[in-house]
Amino acid sequence: MSVPVTIYDTTLRDGTQGTGISFSTLDKIRVAERLDDFGVHYIEGGWPGSNPKDAAFFQEAAKRTWKKAKITAFGMTRRGKLKVEDDAQVQMLLDAQTPAVTIVGKTWPLHVTEVFQVSLEENLAMIADTVAYLKKHGREVLYDAEHFFDSFREDPEYSLKTVKAASDAGADLVVLCETNGGALPEWVEEVTKKVIAHLGKPVGIHTHNDGGVGVANSLAAIRAGACQVQGTINGYGERVGNCNLITVMPNLQLKMGIDLGIDLTRLRELSFFVDELANVPHDIRAPYVGLAAFTHKGGLHVHAVQKLARTYEHVDPSLVGNERIITISDMSGQSNVLMKAEAMGIPLVKGSPDVNKVLAEVKRLESEGYEFEAAEASFELLIRRQLGREIRSFDLIEYHTTHRHHPHNKVETTEATVKISVDGERVYTVDEGDGPVNALDRALRKALLPLFPQLGNVRLEDYKVRIIDSGTGTAAKTRVLIVSSDGNRTWGTVGVSTNVIDASWEALVDSLEYFLMKQD
Amino acid sequence: MSVPVTIYDTTLRDGTQGTGISFSTLDKIRVAERLDDFGVHYIEGGWPGSNPKDAAFFQEAAKRTWKKAKITAFGMTRRGKLKVEDDAQVQMLLDAQTPAVTIVGKTWPLHVTEVFQVSLEENLAMIADTVAYLKKHGREVLYDAEHFFDSFREDPEYSLKTVKAASDAGADLVVLCETNGGALPEWVEEVTKKVIAHLGKPVGIHTHNDGGVGVANSLAAIRAGACQVQGTINGYGERVGNCNLITVMPNLQLKMGIDLGIDLTRLRELSFFVDELANVPHDIRAPYVGLAAFTHKGGLHVHAVQKLARTYEHVDPSLVGNERIITISDMSGQSNVLMKAEAMGIPLVKGSPDVNKVLAEVKRLESEGYEFEAAEASFELLIRRQLGREIRSFDLIEYHTTHRHHPHNKVETTEATVKISVDGERVYTVDEGDGPVNALDRALRKALLPLFPQLGNVRLEDYKVRIIDSGTGTAAKTRVLIVSSDGNRTWGTVGVSTNVIDASWEALVDSLEYFLMKQD
Repeated sequence: MSVPVTIYDTTLRDGTQGTGISFSTLDKIRVAERLDDFGVHYIEGGWPGSNPKDAAFFQEAAKRTWKKAKITAFGMTRRGKLKVEDDAQVQMLLDAQTPAVTIVGKTWPLHVTEVFQVSLEENLAMIADTVAYLKKHGREVLYDAEHFFDSFREDPEYSLKTVKAASDAGADLVVLCETNGGALPEWVEEVTKKVIAHLGKPVGIHTHNDGGVGVANSLAAIRAGACQVQGTINGYGERVGNCNLITVMPNLQLKMGIDLGIDLTRLRELSFFVDELANVPHDIRAPYVGLAAFTHKGGLHVHAVQKLARTYEHVDPSLVGNERIITISDMSGQSNVLMKAEAMGIPLVKGSPDVNKVLAEVKRLESEGYEFEAAEASFELLIRRQLGREIRSFDLIEYHTTHRHHPHNKVETTEATVKISVDGERVYTVDEGDGPVNALDRALRKALLPLFPQLGNVRLEDYKVRIIDSGTGTAAKTRVLIVSSDGNRTWGTVGVSTNVIDASWEALVDSLEYFLMKQD
Repeated sequence: MSVPVTIYDTTLRDGTQGTGISFSTLDKIRVAERLDDFGVHYIEGGWPGSNPKDAAFFQEAAKRTWKKAKITAFGMTRRGKLKVEDDAQVQMLLDAQTPAVTIVGKTWPLHVTEVFQVSLEENLAMIADTVAYLKKHGREVLYDAEHFFDSFREDPEYSLKTVKAASDAGADLVVLCETNGGALPEWVEEVTKKVIAHLGKPVGIHTHNDGGVGVANSLAAIRAGACQVQGTINGYGERVGNCNLITVMPNLQLKMGIDLGIDLTRLRELSFFVDELANVPHDIRAPYVGLAAFTHKGGLHVHAVQKLARTYEHVDPSLVGNERIITISDMSGQSNVLMKAEAMGIPLVKGSPDVNKVLAEVKRLESEGYEFEAAEASFELLIRRQLGREIRSFDLIEYHTTHRHHPHNKVETTEATVKISVDGERVYTVDEGDGPVNALDRALRKALLPLFPQLGNVRLEDYKVRIIDSGTGTAAKTRVLIVSSDGNRTWGTVGVSTNVIDASWEALVDSLEYFLMKQD
């Protein structure tokens, strides 16, 4: 007896309650458009009664046409002392002009009496009044029953009364919220079954990941007959985060055979996009979409993987927009290097001195702190260098940076000079910048651009600095990772030195040399 | 009918197959000692047959006394063509001189015939021979049945034969491995029940997190009667990682009432320790132990949390060595600031102009890119500054850095000069360093140390650089986070600028000023 399952995204509301996550109104619109494009059914855009910025989002959203998703405004049941029509916060819900609204209400008697400071009966009226009022104004109404799974343990009867009140007042869907995030799947399944039996209709599920089982809890509720999963992209959210939709969606559609009507091959792209806008580093170990999700490291495994891909991967990576990656590391045997070189168009012979040369160099550099997993461009240059096949476009003679900071005189200057040799010609440039690396970057491009105008398209996308052995404080070895892009492709390069400027120079040069090499 | 449950840690073996994780032999010993101290039952130290470095670990381990944990060596069933006594890899297992050994064997017919290239019967003999041989030599023997849950789907009969062969040959424990990581809890529970019924004894469970339900899968197996959970600290491991023991242990002991005989209040410390040694950034959203795990952000929530802590937290944070944290952000109301200030010993009055002043300044700085969540020392200085209560130990007049790199002449110099004013006296110093920030740090300390000798204890523990709006390439705004320590306490400070040197200077100065302020 299977019901259609809908996906309700609260990245823009519950997700923003997470540490370090905040979106501008424009960001929110961009995320919403991408979510709509992807095919989620509901997009909870904000909480206008709590966050004034959110009203701006709904104004913008109202101007647009949405393909499939229903933009949803979030709010609360009316205040205890007020009539629902007099509650400004409820009015703001209507002002948002959304097809759907979700209101959260209190389930746990302790919260009702201590936080709301109203009677248990009044709380039921608050729920019913608010739902009915919003229905009367033509909205689809979802009711979030806060702390449901904890409350049900202490007072199952009252808990059931709250959701019955919402349901009887016309709520289109009751959503059980596992607000504290600590329940285990067995309890979630049991309670969900009971509520569905009591109401005579399916419910939605809204879980958190405090016990590390947020996704499993949502799946358990679906098994019990729930018809909607609420969550966030990449599991953003307060504390440990909300149920991660990026994990739940493929589990439902690929593992449990539930058709959500979405194109999962765009899953990874969606995950990365939202991380980018939220300025959150991608979780390389994210299920399904992480860079490492289908990455094989151990040499022994890789050999077998090449032979029998489907038996070593729980799904075909392309089904979720991901790809199989072979990484280089000190545990890898020849297979890894061979596959990587082949992918670069450099055929190597298994067991050859060439392969061993490359392996030895990789191990040596790794023991010095280099990591090539996100710096495949530096790795390719390394391979070519070892095989005597490197094509260098320029040679460094000298560089020099200077920085002066005099707050009282308002002096702030950073300057870099670069002396390079291109085809035997000496080129000597100087430029300023916002910092030493920027100044070097500009001086270097100034030197190269007249000779290689195509470099004009290359931009630095990301710049990461990591201290390798921080036990030595500011003198520690530094690893710099640069991600560059020409608008089409992106590539990563790495540099290591105790001096962050030298490490950055190294990664910068690799980036430009790699680009120029690819042009030939 | 509950069996005692043991914890089997494979951080040092399966965990090291993860992207970016590698331990020196000394690291491994330190981790093993910490694990033993914590109370896990088995510590899988390595795979001597695959990684020569691991033999060194077992040599070291054999010299030590272990309180509770059994050091375990990992290997494989004998090679198809060899007699077990002639298999060098099996011999290495014995050479490790461990009380226990774990061998992995193939379950899936396809792997047996295609990868091992032996008959299904021969594979059973390989399993039985190896187990019996190791038992004969006095080892406790655990048998890992690789890919069990996928194999059981395709060929349940043969799968059961493999584990029966191990069990009949004397294996002390059969461990079912969910190697591809894609099974859901319901299947894991069902299969585990069947195997236990077939063997007439409990089994162990070894899961992976590819479907985002690794922990839930282990819990499901325990519900089905399993008696051992295998996993890694912080969920390290290939691809998405192994079952995270840091999440599983509190779930078992605090939620499922299973006494593992461990002191969970040391859980967080264990998690951080292993991350430090592995040089992995702490996952702030890790269940139970993450910095954000009990962090409340939204102003509304915080107010309620103060009133009814137990109803807003799934467990008391102190049970796992964590603490409740209130963070500052643009969504917070007064409650957050008040609590934070109170914790710093600065009593503020709710609704006062002071609180609003601080809030306004926080919002302003945050819109410029500052983040205070990991920089509580900078935040405290900010509060004091806003309240006119700042005590500055020195004022900057000017600083200057210069760096020259001439590879051919082997010239590599970085120099910084610092001009500050302390109690009206001008102090002007110069020093060299391994990079501009290090040179500044040294020149600054050179200036301050004679006047403030206690600064000699302060060290930089971590230095993070993050590009805030990387769309502007190397000219982007940079946020620097510094973590400092005096051997007892650690504190975080932040700096923001388009110039990484200025951002670093800001965080550096905050760090020293904070330390000096606390001394008074």
